[in-house]
Amino acid sequence: MKTLKELAELVGGTVVGDGEAEIHSVAGIDSAKAGEITFLANPKYLPLLKTTQASAVMVKPGVEAPGVSLLVCPNPYLAFAKVLTALHVTKPEVRGVMEGAFVDPEAQIADGVTVYPGCVIGKNVTVGTGTTLYPGVILYDDVTIGEDCLIHAGTVVREGCRIGNRVIVQPKAVIGSDGFGFAPDGSGYYKIPQVGIVVIEDDVEIGANTCLDRAALGETRIGRGSKIDNLVQIAHNVKIGEDSIIVSQVGIAGSSEIGKHCTLGGQVGVAGHLKIGDNTMIGAQSGIASNLPGGQVFSGSPAIPHRDWLRASMSFSKLPEMRKEIGRLKRQIEELQELIKEG
Amino acid sequence: MKTLKELAELVGGTVVGDGEAEIHSVAGIDSAKAGEITFLANPKYLPLLKTTQASAVMVKPGVEAPGVSLLVCPNPYLAFAKVLTALHVTKPEVRGVMEGAFVDPEAQIADGVTVYPGCVIGKNVTVGTGTTLYPGVILYDDVTIGEDCLIHAGTVVREGCRIGNRVIVQPKAVIGSDGFGFAPDGSGYYKIPQVGIVVIEDDVEIGANTCLDRAALGETRIGRGSKIDNLVQIAHNVKIGEDSIIVSQVGIAGSSEIGKHCTLGGQVGVAGHLKIGDNTMIGAQSGIASNLPGGQVFSGSPAIPHRDWLRASMSFSKLPEMRKEIGRLKRQIEELQELIKEG
Amino acid sequence: MKTLKELAELVGGTVVGDGEAEIHSVAGIDSAKAGEITFLANPKYLPLLKTTQASAVMVKPGVEAPGVSLLVCPNPYLAFAKVLTALHVTKPEVRGVMEGAFVDPEAQIADGVTVYPGCVIGKNVTVGTGTTLYPGVILYDDVTIGEDCLIHAGTVVREGCRIGNRVIVQPKAVIGSDGFGFAPDGSGYYKIPQVGIVVIEDDVEIGANTCLDRAALGETRIGRGSKIDNLVQIAHNVKIGEDSIIVSQVGIAGSSEIGKHCTLGGQVGVAGHLKIGDNTMIGAQSGIASNLPGGQVFSGSPAIPHRDWLRASMSFSKLPEMRKEIGRLKRQIEELQELIKEG
Repeated sequence: MKTLKELAELVGGTVVGDGEAEIHSVAGIDSAKAGEITFLANPKYLPLLKTTQASAVMVKPGVEAPGVSLLVCPNPYLAFAKVLTALHVTKPEVRGVMEGAFVDPEAQIADGVTVYPGCVIGKNVTVGTGTTLYPGVILYDDVTIGEDCLIHAGTVVREGCRIGNRVIVQPKAVIGSDGFGFAPDGSGYYKIPQVGIVVIEDDVEIGANTCLDRAALGETRIGRGSKIDNLVQIAHNVKIGEDSIIVSQVGIAGSSEIGKHCTLGGQVGVAGHLKIGDNTMIGAQSGIASNLPGGQVFSGSPAIPHRDWLRASMSFSKLPEMRKEIGRLKRQIEELQELIKEG
Repeated sequence: MKTLKELAELVGGTVVGDGEAEIHSVAGIDSAKAGEITFLANPKYLPLLKTTQASAVMVKPGVEAPGVSLLVCPNPYLAFAKVLTALHVTKPEVRGVMEGAFVDPEAQIADGVTVYPGCVIGKNVTVGTGTTLYPGVILYDDVTIGEDCLIHAGTVVREGCRIGNRVIVQPKAVIGSDGFGFAPDGSGYYKIPQVGIVVIEDDVEIGANTCLDRAALGETRIGRGSKIDNLVQIAHNVKIGEDSIIVSQVGIAGSSEIGKHCTLGGQVGVAGHLKIGDNTMIGAQSGIASNLPGGQVFSGSPAIPHRDWLRASMSFSKLPEMRKEIGRLKRQIEELQELIKEG
Repeated sequence: MKTLKELAELVGGTVVGDGEAEIHSVAGIDSAKAGEITFLANPKYLPLLKTTQASAVMVKPGVEAPGVSLLVCPNPYLAFAKVLTALHVTKPEVRGVMEGAFVDPEAQIADGVTVYPGCVIGKNVTVGTGTTLYPGVILYDDVTIGEDCLIHAGTVVREGCRIGNRVIVQPKAVIGSDGFGFAPDGSGYYKIPQVGIVVIEDDVEIGANTCLDRAALGETRIGRGSKIDNLVQIAHNVKIGEDSIIVSQVGIAGSSEIGKHCTLGGQVGVAGHLKIGDNTMIGAQSGIASNLPGGQVFSGSPAIPHRDWLRASMSFSKLPEMRKEIGRLKRQIEELQELIKEG
């Protein structure tokens, strides 16, 4: 529970209306009730300001709404995230190593860590203070996990991988599985041992059931602040820069490097050994088969500049008609040629 | 073991031949032996009726097969499913909370529930009678699971999510992972806490390694009777109507609503904040980027009506030839223009 | 630690330089130091031979490098894999059934097996000697696992499935989940029980979070030596031949048969009930909707011969221009027709 004034201080905004109003939670603009705060980021919902039951609304400067308390701030969407955090997020209770967890005597578990039942922790593992390992987390030997991480249930981290501070891993991610490397030996395939590791830098989030393969040699690396959604495949020796966004079901093949501040839409595929420059945006379902310069938007499979793809896609359904038209033109030209020859 | 007559009653069919024949199992038409029943749904397999060793065959009305006992019924495929259930499916043995399961004292586990070793069950969890939690199922605090559910090994259900009755969850599904929401804060991204839940209605099936993200606010909801295959991504605040079919590796982005009785083929992607009408069918690998009316079939990425896509796809490989032809026509027209000018 | 001479014997190569040089590990050509061996498979890295700090380099016959010891062999990439194995891979320590593992008294666990904490093993399960079950592996009743397998953490194998010898399963694979089969019953869907199994032959590797569905009746089968990457969906009754490569995020629908020595690129989709001939290669993100003969390369969705697809894809972005050009030609022809009529 916080007053509207306290929330305004938190998000760097100003109150128009009742600063003493007590706010206990956040809700959508159409379902919010008294005691709740909501937000308005999209002008198309402006009419809802008249009917909302919320005690306060976070809005951009310039919005007026007689009879409703406003929290005016430059970025209501970011303010929404901060208020939600303040009102709804509590640090998990520290419970230590609980009964039913199996921790190797040579592991180093800091004070202030919670290890739930069903966790199995190998030799020489280090877990930093403030970190919670939810039930069924499995850390192979020599894994390092930093401070204040949330590692959700059933996540597996294989031998030697390193996770930084404030990293959040959703349930059942796999970190450090073998890269997919096989050398043809004439008849079949000979496994190339994958002896590298995965390094996850600070403030990264990894989605549920996402797979990060360990490097063949060296490192697979996820840069500070990057966010990876569910069911993503990151192959061996991939590097992802800082603050990049990788949406669900993306696959990035071996040794490719994604720059900083990139966004890869859902189900994108990136072939191996490529470089994607900083600030690149790639539309959903695209297929990337060559290096991309930074700062541009691409779509399609194989990908082309987004605008070209939009225009070409709109023409795609016209293909049969175009073929017919070409046939008609051909016949008309033949008739003209005939006429002229005769003439 | 049942007699053919008993099976006929079960499926609402009639016996042509030996109603007292004892049937112990179901098999394919080419591998079935004496004591087994098989089915014929596709007329192209009619010739196999002469050579099958099965004791009986489920067929549509109108099929004749001297020397083979028939179970005649309007829908042999459905009958096959019912007979398979009758002969092969037994309710799992009730074993209570087994040694090696960790159940919070504040959880409410009904009589008639089985909780296998390796399960971890949090505070205020409710599990209804007849439900089986296979090994390694992890239920966070405040989860509700209805009656007669089968929750297969390694499934994780995060805090507060609700599962109805007769729900089947294949191994290692993740229910209630955080939605993928981040607000840009100038330099990087600020996590938007995901404080909603997932609600799974009665008679739903969820595939292996499928992810259902919890809502940011409110609910992600899977409608009664819908079936979701393996490795599917359902993002935060998605709603799926009743009796819809979502095939493997589909991804549905945030807040999109899929109607009733829809079918989404494998690897389909649906962008966020869209509405897909009831009875829509979407071909495999399609990409949906706009609202779709109900009752139609779409394919392609971006998707267009299925027939248009089929025709356009057939023309796609002709593109290089079409370009050449256009070049030829252009030159011929120039020649004609020249001729006429001269003439 | 091995001498260069010993490594040469191992890979069937010859030493040019110091055969007594002691090699303790393998590294990339640009990061290798004294005591390390590296390899050169791609001629474009030849200049690095002059600057590498490695004690030795594996090269093809014909490469010369004064001042560097060479291990000359016909296939340096395969030699790299073998040397990596010799220097870096040790058999896992045998630890027996460890505390915290739950093994049914009717399971048969051979000597020389390791079962880590958190594993749960059902009735009548058989595990062959030399096999390691990492933490949290769950084997339902009647599962058979051969000798010298590595089953990584959190993998689930459902009832009755059979795994051969020397099989490697990356973390959290699901083997034997129900196939996705439902019969419409007028209003909704009736579940078709999936009473078959999965059979994995010898020397197969299965990726992390990959799903192999059990057959409806009979078997889903993965042929000897085949390698399946992460997040792959193999539906019920699929057969994969020997020595095939299935890259990440591929989905193969029910009852399709993939031949021997095939390669399916990342994110490929294969529709149900198809046959793909031996030695077929399918480009990433392709969609296969019809049978394919063996020995060819296909790409696109729907797939066409790879060369045709490459050429057509290059024309795709020209579509809007082509439409305009067709319009221009049409007008020019009309003008010509007019001129001739007048003339």
